[in-house]
Amino acid sequence: MNSDADALRTVKDADRKHVFHSWSAQELIDPLAVAGAEGSYFWDYEGNRYLDFSSALVYTNIGYQHPKVAAAIAEQAGKLCTVAPGFAVDVRSEAARLIAERTPGDLDKIFFTNAGAEAVENAVRMARLHTGRPKVMSAYRSYHGATTTAINLTGDARRFGNDTATAGVVHFWGPFPYRSPFYAGSEAEECERALRHLEDTVVFEGPQSIAAIILETVGGAPGVLVPPAGYLAGVREICDRHGIVFILDEVMVGFGRTGKWFAAENWDVTPDLLCFAKGVTSGYVPLGGVAISSAIAETFARRPYPGGLTYSGHVLACAAAVATIGVMAEEGVVEQSARTGAELLGPGLRALAERHPSVGEVRGLGTFWALELVRDAGTREPLVPYNASGAENAPMAAFGAALKKGGLWPLLAGNRIHVAPPCNISAEDVAKGLEILDGALAVTDAHMA
Amino acid sequence: MNSDADALRTVKDADRKHVFHSWSAQELIDPLAVAGAEGSYFWDYEGNRYLDFSSALVYTNIGYQHPKVAAAIAEQAGKLCTVAPGFAVDVRSEAARLIAERTPGDLDKIFFTNAGAEAVENAVRMARLHTGRPKVMSAYRSYHGATTTAINLTGDARRFGNDTATAGVVHFWGPFPYRSPFYAGSEAEECERALRHLEDTVVFEGPQSIAAIILETVGGAPGVLVPPAGYLAGVREICDRHGIVFILDEVMVGFGRTGKWFAAENWDVTPDLLCFAKGVTSGYVPLGGVAISSAIAETFARRPYPGGLTYSGHVLACAAAVATIGVMAEEGVVEQSARTGAELLGPGLRALAERHPSVGEVRGLGTFWALELVRDAGTREPLVPYNASGAENAPMAAFGAALKKGGLWPLLAGNRIHVAPPCNISAEDVAKGLEILDGALAVTDAHMA
Repeated sequence: MNSDADALRTVKDADRKHVFHSWSAQELIDPLAVAGAEGSYFWDYEGNRYLDFSSALVYTNIGYQHPKVAAAIAEQAGKLCTVAPGFAVDVRSEAARLIAERTPGDLDKIFFTNAGAEAVENAVRMARLHTGRPKVMSAYRSYHGATTTAINLTGDARRFGNDTATAGVVHFWGPFPYRSPFYAGSEAEECERALRHLEDTVVFEGPQSIAAIILETVGGAPGVLVPPAGYLAGVREICDRHGIVFILDEVMVGFGRTGKWFAAENWDVTPDLLCFAKGVTSGYVPLGGVAISSAIAETFARRPYPGGLTYSGHVLACAAAVATIGVMAEEGVVEQSARTGAELLGPGLRALAERHPSVGEVRGLGTFWALELVRDAGTREPLVPYNASGAENAPMAAFGAALKKGGLWPLLAGNRIHVAPPCNISAEDVAKGLEILDGALAVTDAHMA
Repeated sequence: MNSDADALRTVKDADRKHVFHSWSAQELIDPLAVAGAEGSYFWDYEGNRYLDFSSALVYTNIGYQHPKVAAAIAEQAGKLCTVAPGFAVDVRSEAARLIAERTPGDLDKIFFTNAGAEAVENAVRMARLHTGRPKVMSAYRSYHGATTTAINLTGDARRFGNDTATAGVVHFWGPFPYRSPFYAGSEAEECERALRHLEDTVVFEGPQSIAAIILETVGGAPGVLVPPAGYLAGVREICDRHGIVFILDEVMVGFGRTGKWFAAENWDVTPDLLCFAKGVTSGYVPLGGVAISSAIAETFARRPYPGGLTYSGHVLACAAAVATIGVMAEEGVVEQSARTGAELLGPGLRALAERHPSVGEVRGLGTFWALELVRDAGTREPLVPYNASGAENAPMAAFGAALKKGGLWPLLAGNRIHVAPPCNISAEDVAKGLEILDGALAVTDAHMA
């Protein structure tokens, strides 16, 4: 037995015995052991390399192990890893400044958290205290994290099985032209009807009881749900008219993913609170946060904000953010993401859709796309039912296996593949990924009704 | 203007403009700018050095910038910062193994989180799903974090101002001999009465509705509340008798703080779930988690656990944990913490109490102590009222200012100072800290009734 095999056995044994994995039945999983990663690739102990079209969980926006960010973390580790959140520290100040400089409008105060769920928790707390109102509205087809408020706001199956009451949360339906909840015949009609549905729901819940409406700017986990033109501006207008705080959750879509620093810029909309995480450090060190409007910051100018956390503005994490933002700016990663979407991924995925009848729709922007896989292009029946598992999910499992065999690590969700490579993926790797997808889509084509 | 002054102005300006601080009225604070830290000290830009008797927020258990841990983080940064949580990774496996090896009993599966609040959130989720019961009981005088479930469980003033309903939470009173809620005349009587109170509350809430009882093994933020002998064993027995999950929150007291790897070892008690964070990496990289009993792990063996997070088992954080635990083991930090408590801090603080009438009680163990400051030793009236601010809190503010002027950074809470230096503080620095305390207690003595 060689040393790689020894190392693999050690990793796998301890993982099986001692690591409890997220969202899993522990005995029904067999986690791949990852030995290393660089750029858009990671590899296992047996020499298999995977082109990562998932960016881990849509967070390695500059790919794995960017040397400048790795070096900045190493340097900061040698200098100062941590001090308590109550102090001012150079990299904490600088990270906040760099983020505030890029957030839209007057979102100039940054409350740092460890990751996305706590960003949402704190945004909701701020909105409730700012308005003095109890309810928060969020969309079906959404994911906002897994702490109590965040999972209650979530509008997907991960909410199932969490027996917390949905205290103070009201779900509504957002626009989704391909599977319109409003029987709309066009994007413009979908937008208009979705806004009317939201306005009606606000009125019937009682506007004076609603603290906030929270939306993912582009719905991430629910399937790269790109809002129709005018929708976000319409929500902004409804919020303004009723004194409701507008929260955009940009945990997945911030920092280049949609070809802008923040996805809201695509529609020239400014929320009152903006949640971020993931891309801010490319996940190299955990960091998240809320960017806060001046009106909401003013609420807590002379009245204590009743929330906080031990690692708010963690020094090493802030150093990683400073370096990541620096690399993104210097190397034009945001612009590259936009270009890759417009010139390579968009056209390439649409070309696949023309060749493969199981691709019902291609949608996305920047380096964030989804293919909706169907059993029937006419009825748009999903290739597998909602929240499928086991045998029901076999077509998607077979598709995933074919992709991995081809050397691409996919992000599969329901009847969709989400295409979310690093924002700085090379043209060659886009072409390679499209080729692997092309081959594997034969599997889903074969499962058509 | 020299470069230090320039740097200071840059840090402070951006902090004021862009950093939103935890638990604070933003315009009423003036955060000290920290320039660096090492061991038990940190310093500002003006050459002032502070002996840190707060260990940041009670988490730098091996002090700041331990060279071995800093080097391990730097090395890991150059190798692999992150991969998605679904994979097996060497340092994730090894961190889980090292923690499981040290947790009491059969707490052998580790679910990693970013920090303490999410550890509590997930422990509660596990307990509710394991038992199928809705309610969780926690103590007044407790702190469990600031996400929705965690802040609802919290039994201190930080819960105030959070307008979430205390859904599914029942608070009870724990033992506190110095300010007995049970009019007890001795520790043994306090223990017996506290257990009877808990049993009665369980019975009147309906045992079949109670998923879990959560306790800090030693109450941290509420004032280093060391449980009387027999209390935790008594709670364990009540839980067993009623099928209730026993959760110990060791976020603040795990990893050497009380002179044991985990505080529960001081009383030979094994919970069903144990929450940790802070000391596991000495805070160098954010990390927390839940150690899970085999019975609860079995619940999620073939049924998916409906919780998770992007950075569960973050690679860089796990590398920091492996290095921190290694340093603690090699350098005998846990044993040093016990010795420092028994031989230096305990005797030293008790000697201060004899000289200073404003010290009503000294309690603690290891490197975790509190001095209860009073206006009247007979009535035990606290030096300042509960949740005091402004003028009401002036005596404590003056005490804090005197300590800082003396070169000691204190952890003040209500009418108490908590003494929580790094677990590996040197004997010289303990002596120095006690001397500074001695001087500053003249301030509190002067405020006696």
